[in-house]
Amino acid sequence: MIYPKIFSDLVEDFKSLPGIGEKTAERLVFSLLDFDEQKLESYGNNITNLKKQIKYCNNCGVLTDMDTCNICKDISRKKDTVIVVENSKDVFLIEKTGTFRGMYHVLGGLISPIDEIGPEDISIDKLVERVEKENIKEVILAIKSGIEADTTALYIKKILEEKNVKVSRIASGIPVGADMEYVDSLTLQSALNNRNEVL
Amino acid sequence: MIYPKIFSDLVEDFKSLPGIGEKTAERLVFSLLDFDEQKLESYGNNITNLKKQIKYCNNCGVLTDMDTCNICKDISRKKDTVIVVENSKDVFLIEKTGTFRGMYHVLGGLISPIDEIGPEDISIDKLVERVEKENIKEVILAIKSGIEADTTALYIKKILEEKNVKVSRIASGIPVGADMEYVDSLTLQSALNNRNEVL
Repeated sequence: MIYPKIFSDLVEDFKSLPGIGEKTAERLVFSLLDFDEQKLESYGNNITNLKKQIKYCNNCGVLTDMDTCNICKDISRKKDTVIVVENSKDVFLIEKTGTFRGMYHVLGGLISPIDEIGPEDISIDKLVERVEKENIKEVILAIKSGIEADTTALYIKKILEEKNVKVSRIASGIPVGADMEYVDSLTLQSALNNRNEVL
Repeated sequence: MIYPKIFSDLVEDFKSLPGIGEKTAERLVFSLLDFDEQKLESYGNNITNLKKQIKYCNNCGVLTDMDTCNICKDISRKKDTVIVVENSKDVFLIEKTGTFRGMYHVLGGLISPIDEIGPEDISIDKLVERVEKENIKEVILAIKSGIEADTTALYIKKILEEKNVKVSRIASGIPVGADMEYVDSLTLQSALNNRNEVL
């Protein structure tokens, strides 16, 4: 015996989400049976319409439901500092820290010759254009470590060289509260290189 | 800054599923952005229509998309043995073992005076009716351990007493492959009581 068709279709739908296997998917679909119809309808409609309603900010590229996002429209923010991130998710992560009051720029990927992603495939031209137009003084690269990220960082540094803009990159090191023994040697090495004077 | 409305609505939707917290929900919604629109539409429609298309078998009560489920319609199955379970999920679990070729009966709950669930709130009348009509010889109670389950089992045993039907209950004991030391003492006690002669 098998599940009713719509049930097993939905199990497949949930299974296509990251980290959700067969058993979890089945459990989730069973739990949906306890929802009321109205809730199921709004849930279903939200999924159906997600990509129809989500846009990407025409200035910084973050996901939004307007043409220009709230951050770019916010006149109280410092316009001359921009954090460059790989994707929208990182913007929300940094916003949650509540410590940064400047602008963002979403690359939408990293340079990766092996995957045939070149500088023209990610939003670097737009970044250069913004640096010129918006009179940006500092570009902070908030991209993870790794070959692609390092390549992208070097490329951006090089292309912005004669634009009179400071290019920095967020520190890699030991996570706050983490035990030294659980940190890999590359991170430890980086933490040593990025050591700060105790004042 | 907050997420676009549909995005945070969808995060809330996913958070209402069991075992999914804020961070996981956000990760799932971000992953949905990589789906194509067609896939999102069918996924959304499946959620919207789930309860509209799911019915409960008019004979055994298992969830199905027909009036009578495939198990009840299957003439090759043994009609005189019925496994009684708490809910549909258990039917699918037992079917997956592939060892049982009889019928099922879904109670839709257990007797629980504390929650004001009496015998009339679950599908016991229908079970008695089936025992009489379908000439059932053995009723196997496949319900978990616990006060509610024990009460329900006793009630069913009592009500079927003069119907000339054998009422049995699945064994509780040590899970196959489990270490003795990880088994709680109630289970161990039950396993001792249910000991079988080595032949």
